[in-house]
Amino acid sequence: MHPAMPHTLDTLDTPAAIVCLPRMQHNIARMQQQAERLGVRLRPHAKTTKCAEVVAAQQAAGASGITVSTLKEAEQFFAQGVTDILYAVGMAPHRLPQALALRQRGCALKILTDSVTGAQAIVDFGRAHAHAFDVLVEIDTDGHRSGITPDDAALLDVGRLLHEGGMRLAGVLTHAGSSYELDTPHALAALAEQERAGCVHAAQRLRAAGLPCPVVSVGSTPTALAAESLEGVTELRAGVYVFFDLVMHNVGVCRTDEIALSVLTTVIGHQADKGWAIVDAGWMAMSRDRGTARQAQDYGYGQVCALDGTPMPGWRMSSANQEHGIVSHSAAPGAQNAPIDVAAALPIGTRLRILPNHACATGAQFPQYHALAEDGAVQAWHRFHGW
Amino acid sequence: MHPAMPHTLDTLDTPAAIVCLPRMQHNIARMQQQAERLGVRLRPHAKTTKCAEVVAAQQAAGASGITVSTLKEAEQFFAQGVTDILYAVGMAPHRLPQALALRQRGCALKILTDSVTGAQAIVDFGRAHAHAFDVLVEIDTDGHRSGITPDDAALLDVGRLLHEGGMRLAGVLTHAGSSYELDTPHALAALAEQERAGCVHAAQRLRAAGLPCPVVSVGSTPTALAAESLEGVTELRAGVYVFFDLVMHNVGVCRTDEIALSVLTTVIGHQADKGWAIVDAGWMAMSRDRGTARQAQDYGYGQVCALDGTPMPGWRMSSANQEHGIVSHSAAPGAQNAPIDVAAALPIGTRLRILPNHACATGAQFPQYHALAEDGAVQAWHRFHGW
Repeated sequence: MHPAMPHTLDTLDTPAAIVCLPRMQHNIARMQQQAERLGVRLRPHAKTTKCAEVVAAQQAAGASGITVSTLKEAEQFFAQGVTDILYAVGMAPHRLPQALALRQRGCALKILTDSVTGAQAIVDFGRAHAHAFDVLVEIDTDGHRSGITPDDAALLDVGRLLHEGGMRLAGVLTHAGSSYELDTPHALAALAEQERAGCVHAAQRLRAAGLPCPVVSVGSTPTALAAESLEGVTELRAGVYVFFDLVMHNVGVCRTDEIALSVLTTVIGHQADKGWAIVDAGWMAMSRDRGTARQAQDYGYGQVCALDGTPMPGWRMSSANQEHGIVSHSAAPGAQNAPIDVAAALPIGTRLRILPNHACATGAQFPQYHALAEDGAVQAWHRFHGW
Repeated sequence: MHPAMPHTLDTLDTPAAIVCLPRMQHNIARMQQQAERLGVRLRPHAKTTKCAEVVAAQQAAGASGITVSTLKEAEQFFAQGVTDILYAVGMAPHRLPQALALRQRGCALKILTDSVTGAQAIVDFGRAHAHAFDVLVEIDTDGHRSGITPDDAALLDVGRLLHEGGMRLAGVLTHAGSSYELDTPHALAALAEQERAGCVHAAQRLRAAGLPCPVVSVGSTPTALAAESLEGVTELRAGVYVFFDLVMHNVGVCRTDEIALSVLTTVIGHQADKGWAIVDAGWMAMSRDRGTARQAQDYGYGQVCALDGTPMPGWRMSSANQEHGIVSHSAAPGAQNAPIDVAAALPIGTRLRILPNHACATGAQFPQYHALAEDGAVQAWHRFHGW
């Protein structure tokens, strides 16, 4: 191929992480409309993509500010012009100098804590540097990870310590990540309400104690889409919605034809007796995420699609080594079909696209995405890696 | 910290991938001695580390040439002066121009096929470019992935096609990757002999048909260490032995104090009622590899060690989100110990090291290793990412 000729799905080297732009734009618009309908601002979580072009598309659609999971993400997006950044992982004391440096360079970085010890470290460091950090208190509304439960006495202790210590108590934040374990609209709506009510209750306790609490921040992709009311909430956070994946499909918040990320791969061999096609995307490309194994429909390492993105019913990546994937067909139990001639169905050189279990994990395996436009043109988008 | 001051485990940002140099050198020496005892050359698999310094240490200890799993690895190591490179994944026809370019630049690249279709593509491309590729035929000795079984008629078809088509039939290669599923010395020794015998038998069939077969290449870390004889074999391949990991520990080929890779992490919070410490290494750092889940001892996302690398009995990373790990203690069933005060045992800011399930997968999550010398000095070693 001529070096100046733009790539297509037929010429890209494999494996490659393909982002279907029309689907991505559809997903961005859907979540933005949901936030607007519910009367809250949308602060997308950039950890899913770690990609400037994706975040730019989210901001262009109306999102305000971003959420990040590492200070490297904060550094990278600030360098690209995003200033309103929420670092939504509990602040480790040794990272306070890096956070201060970002703020002193003009980044409106907000940080998070969920303990008296953590708050004290922020206060001590802030005072020592004559700096008032913007700090949110993490609230635990579903028991799945970090945070202070809304009724815990520690909430007021942390709030007072920050406020009286000269920091800006910016609000409360929660993430009902257990939503990934649900799969009915009723259960999702109930958890969304639990997430909202718990976080609003925590805010009300702080305010009743005479403390400021301007921000009430909630969200996970499933609860964000299932929420019927966000009364009392000021902002919504969500990450994986921008691409979706098979786990989200099983949770029930997207169709497979809304999944915007797929891995382009090439058939490199067969084991005809076993009905296996061997492809050049293994777990290094798909990631080791087997999130659908615990769900109603187990997709192995991914759903196999034709090059145009159409799912091929029954074809999955059933197993994976580092750079080898095993693609096989699972006929319905009791089916009377003739055995599939896999070498005839998927000859060597055939290109396939694999929908991933978990877009955050699969994306992280690639230094770049390849954004696929409606007209078939492909453009490389850098994503960053590491800490 | 002064910018010119060298890092230590106390000052590195977390999470970080720590390589314990004395352990690495011990592991390199052990496999090299095993190859020498068995009278074969050692061709380490660079896919585990993708790191020039590690490969240089392997070559300095006596290894000859390397194995790679992608042409990007071949490109990178060739740029660093390694010329004898075996690409041990079945050759996709669309990658032949890249392989040819590498060979024309002086890289002694060997490629692999396991089908008449694949061999024909190599012959057609080689002839069209007046180039004789060095080609090995992949042999399937344990049914776990690719390759032609040793007695299959296709073996001679592929061998003849390559030889008569003007390619250099360089030999046969097998990888008994099912060794990862075993855990007794007897079963490992038996699989090592099956791997050896099958590959030698394939070589003998090619030679009996008047075809050349100079190389007989076998290996996986467990079978390489369990082999009692490699009669008829010319080279041994292994990858993960350089670091080892918890999966290899469960297979029975290393002790935990031989595992050279660990993830340095910081405690950022607690859920005292649940006995959880929250650390800043989640699955993005550890990878989603849960290889020990299917083994006799399940380590969750990893074995927790103190900062000096000493395992802390009963402490594991029991769960992981993207940038959060949950560390907890599993008291022995029926134990009468008092509940552990996790916030007192592991205060915020405590640094821990987590031994990973799978060194190949965990390493791939990091842009660099930090090599830890006996004297505590830490040096950054780049590793490359993607395809």
